Amino acid sequence: MQPTHFTPVPLDKAYRLLSHGPTVLVSASHGGVDNVMSAAWACALDFAPPKVTVVLDKATRTRELVEASGCFALQLPTVTQAAMTVAVGTDSAKTVPDKLQRHGVALFEAPGHPSTPLVHGCAAWLVCRVIPEPHNQQAYDLFISEVVAAWADERVFRNGHWEFDTAPDELRTLHYVAGGQFYATGASVRV
Amino acid sequence: MQPTHFTPVPLDKAYRLLSHGPTVLVSASHGGVDNVMSAAWACALDFAPPKVTVVLDKATRTRELVEASGCFALQLPTVTQAAMTVAVGTDSAKTVPDKLQRHGVALFEAPGHPSTPLVHGCAAWLVCRVIPEPHNQQAYDLFISEVVAAWADERVFRNGHWEFDTAPDELRTLHYVAGGQFYATGASVRV
Repeated sequence: MQPTHFTPVPLDKAYRLLSHGPTVLVSASHGGVDNVMSAAWACALDFAPPKVTVVLDKATRTRELVEASGCFALQLPTVTQAAMTVAVGTDSAKTVPDKLQRHGVALFEAPGHPSTPLVHGCAAWLVCRVIPEPHNQQAYDLFISEVVAAWADERVFRNGHWEFDTAPDELRTLHYVAGGQFYATGASVRV
Repeated sequence: MQPTHFTPVPLDKAYRLLSHGPTVLVSASHGGVDNVMSAAWACALDFAPPKVTVVLDKATRTRELVEASGCFALQLPTVTQAAMTVAVGTDSAKTVPDKLQRHGVALFEAPGHPSTPLVHGCAAWLVCRVIPEPHNQQAYDLFISEVVAAWADERVFRNGHWEFDTAPDELRTLHYVAGGQFYATGASVRV
């Protein structure tokens, strides 16, 4: 079931979901197996069509699912999801097969993209299709992808803009540092 | 002259300067010409040796200097530099030749890297050497580079960690959204 706060974001505004540099959760599915990992190294790459880069280590199960399916989702966890974000980035499904259940990760189906699971409770979601670049993937663990659909919790992103200042602080997005430490997205600075 | 607060960062900790997703200033020099532009789309790519990605539009003078010299610096502007950051991202040296003077950008020499200018007043600096990847550069405006030296203002980054909570708020880094709006790096979230 879709979340209550789940509003489409026009594709030409999708880059704004990543420009502020948030930590993301990467989700993917193949052959009936779902998985989710966290990633600090995801970045917008282009405006229209929107493209993104994400670094996926060869040791991860999620990368195997991305390579097999050619699809994945990036989603932006909130402050209340910080512990889960660390947990799904620490535990691998290779050694902790029930990691999603163990860490309370609830999935739902991306509308129009039934093979891409999304994570409940996030601030925004981007469904991405891999643009095959074998050299980048092998040499740098770098995946270039096109964003084919996007949504956001309209309490924090609406009319093409983040509106963290008028929303509950627990909906702020996360910026990873290291060792279980993040910074929340902070005060608005307007020039 | 070097800034007062300018402390070397060990290369194996350099990725932590970018993992929280800050907006950067890109500086480069070639043939006696210096330039600086802002970029929201820079990202860590690897730990050791540290590597980064940055998107540099073909229309920019700074990209020409990067391509000619093979070197550039990324540096993290602070909240007090928000207006300058927007200005050097809006004005091009191609049409505003005195853009650095006009926007009060003061440069200094990167120690040991005399051909790479750094910007005064930032929170951290990374000197980078381009790893030539012509396909990425042409098709995606994407530059992959190795970080060869790094420094930080030790009031905000020391012993391998950001310490924004104990420093003046005006030293917080910036996260760009669009249209002259940023978010400052916010509250620490520890799991």
